[in-house]
Amino acid sequence: MSPPAFQDFYPDDLSHCYGCGRLNEHGLKIKSYWDGDETVATFLPRPYHTAIPGYVYGGLIASLVDCHGTGTASAAAYRAAGREMGSEPPFRFVTASLKVDYLRPTPLGVPLEVRGRVESISGRKVVVSATVSAEGRVCARGEVVAVQMPDGMRG
Amino acid sequence: MSPPAFQDFYPDDLSHCYGCGRLNEHGLKIKSYWDGDETVATFLPRPYHTAIPGYVYGGLIASLVDCHGTGTASAAAYRAAGREMGSEPPFRFVTASLKVDYLRPTPLGVPLEVRGRVESISGRKVVVSATVSAEGRVCARGEVVAVQMPDGMRG
Repeated sequence: MSPPAFQDFYPDDLSHCYGCGRLNEHGLKIKSYWDGDETVATFLPRPYHTAIPGYVYGGLIASLVDCHGTGTASAAAYRAAGREMGSEPPFRFVTASLKVDYLRPTPLGVPLEVRGRVESISGRKVVVSATVSAEGRVCARGEVVAVQMPDGMRG
Repeated sequence: MSPPAFQDFYPDDLSHCYGCGRLNEHGLKIKSYWDGDETVATFLPRPYHTAIPGYVYGGLIASLVDCHGTGTASAAAYRAAGREMGSEPPFRFVTASLKVDYLRPTPLGVPLEVRGRVESISGRKVVVSATVSAEGRVCARGEVVAVQMPDGMRG
């Protein structure tokens, strides 16, 4: 059994995200973990996640950066507060801003490694930078400005 | 019958994009059109394109901005060159950089309108700004830096 990922600690009612929700049957189920002070997620794109044939769709790469970024923000907020992951009330972040620079075409058919780094934590805002690599080469760089989910969003 | 969209003019071998390829059976099939000097695409997210329940997944919004941006770049390049859309060689763009600001949660269950505006055309690069609206309210703003596909990418 794999250890629980950041996203596995989200409460059930906040676990339906298409990118990373464990309860979204159609979704990508992105899973993020600590690796020292960085965070890491590995994802194997499906054969139909194509851009130009042979290369990964940019919108998928943006999705990886997005969910790995908000997951990293959650884990970093728990760590900064000295709280155990999953303890209530949850640190659940949404994306205020997402930026991705596509440095080179990303080959399809190999696992992608997404690495995150916490750039800043201030109040309800966490900034996370990320890289997406294939076969050891960085193909894209991104940044997520994540903010704690407004209370009114939880139905 | 609908009129052809920008993406319908892409050659067959460049029509497999998960976001907008007419030949990708699993994909989103985003379709973009001129509306005066702006461009428009309408997309109804599927019920599972969830972020927090009730709201649209940010990675999907990024995908809409991405493919509408590169489609707009293609159409704008044809128009600037005084060429008919679909004439050879094709103007097919890929994304160098994508930025999305999520201004407010985007409600799930209603069609989204993506509007694009060409900010600049210079050499092989086209910059497109975009808004994503639901029920007449702008929920996200984006920018795509699109560049003509490098010759080596076409298999």
